[in-house]
Amino acid sequence: MRYQLFYWPEIQGRGEFVRLALEDAGASYEDVARKAGGVSRMMKMMDGEKRPPFAPPFLKAGKLVIAQSAEILFYLGPRLKLAPRADADRLWLHQLQLTVTDFVKEAHDTHHPLGAEFYYEDAKPEAKRFTDNFLAERTPKYLGYFETVIKKSGGPYALGRKFTYVDLSLFQSIEGLRYAFPKAMTRIEVGLPRVVAVHDKVAARPNIKKYLASSRRIAFNEMGVFRRYPELDD
Amino acid sequence: MRYQLFYWPEIQGRGEFVRLALEDAGASYEDVARKAGGVSRMMKMMDGEKRPPFAPPFLKAGKLVIAQSAEILFYLGPRLKLAPRADADRLWLHQLQLTVTDFVKEAHDTHHPLGAEFYYEDAKPEAKRFTDNFLAERTPKYLGYFETVIKKSGGPYALGRKFTYVDLSLFQSIEGLRYAFPKAMTRIEVGLPRVVAVHDKVAARPNIKKYLASSRRIAFNEMGVFRRYPELDD
Repeated sequence: MRYQLFYWPEIQGRGEFVRLALEDAGASYEDVARKAGGVSRMMKMMDGEKRPPFAPPFLKAGKLVIAQSAEILFYLGPRLKLAPRADADRLWLHQLQLTVTDFVKEAHDTHHPLGAEFYYEDAKPEAKRFTDNFLAERTPKYLGYFETVIKKSGGPYALGRKFTYVDLSLFQSIEGLRYAFPKAMTRIEVGLPRVVAVHDKVAARPNIKKYLASSRRIAFNEMGVFRRYPELDD
Repeated sequence: MRYQLFYWPEIQGRGEFVRLALEDAGASYEDVARKAGGVSRMMKMMDGEKRPPFAPPFLKAGKLVIAQSAEILFYLGPRLKLAPRADADRLWLHQLQLTVTDFVKEAHDTHHPLGAEFYYEDAKPEAKRFTDNFLAERTPKYLGYFETVIKKSGGPYALGRKFTYVDLSLFQSIEGLRYAFPKAMTRIEVGLPRVVAVHDKVAARPNIKKYLASSRRIAFNEMGVFRRYPELDD
């Protein structure tokens, strides 16, 4: 199966959680919107589908069109050997991924607390108040939860001995947070040896190393989910 | 199968999307935290499970414990005859439900734009700015999307002729928004005949009518997702 991924071409964003799974598995895929004319192909699909996605990312797999990054990963997981086939395990991984989704939404809101329609510059004091709470309360709570999950699974991965797409998403979350909040993350990571170990194991995977060094990996920037505004960091 | 639902006892919140499905289907369930000692039973489960939920709501179904309202509905859908069994249909409904989830999160953030840890009174101007944008841009965008979905399906429901849990969630979204923003919703609903028709069909379903008139339906209040602060409305 050759997959087609549709996502904004200039950011990692929510599409990156899917890209990492496709890349780690060595899957055959086209990153449609990054080719000439690709964004208009993407917009046409969104308008034209009988079952239209609300927003990118979405994946075309044969006749299926699937949106929402967590759902795309739920679908791809067993097909890419990045999830077991048993229903109970798949539901548990999906539950974890939906919690990653909630966390990533809050990470996005650090720079856009009043809505994505505002410019960052028009809500800076609000962004600071949001981020102070995000780094003091929310990030330790979410990452502490994943630390507990890995501990209870027996480790080294979120599911235990089996490596899954959730580990890839934890890697991406840590990478993004380190980019956006390097000082705060130095402090927060102290209590998270298992989460950091998952991050490091992912970074050492051959397909991921190749991908991160390639031009297919878009650099972090100030248009994506994770943005570096030093005034927001600790 | 007798289900156990775990959710905060004093609010509709995210648990209500699950309750409506259980009630419409006439399923046998226990609303655990609303009984004496139930909240501490819920907290114990969250601590004790080998695969712990991040937050309520969660559902116990035999040995399975499933969290995240959209995932609970994905699981319950075919079992309660509120979703078809075909994978493509189930994935599509889940995608719609995840979009409801995103929308409900934004509805929550109207009164808590800087994070749930702040008091409403400590971020009132921010709540007003968030809500103005939510009512001008976001609500018409989300509900307009569902209007398009129903139109493309052929109607009268989100999936077409088959009634599903997504219709119940659209009902709940409209009910909540009408409670929170009665003036704005009068304006916004004008362009949404199909969404409003789904709402009305749900309200007329015998099991839903019985449920809404019962003490099992918690009244809307200023602790839940949808809150009435008149200063935030149009």
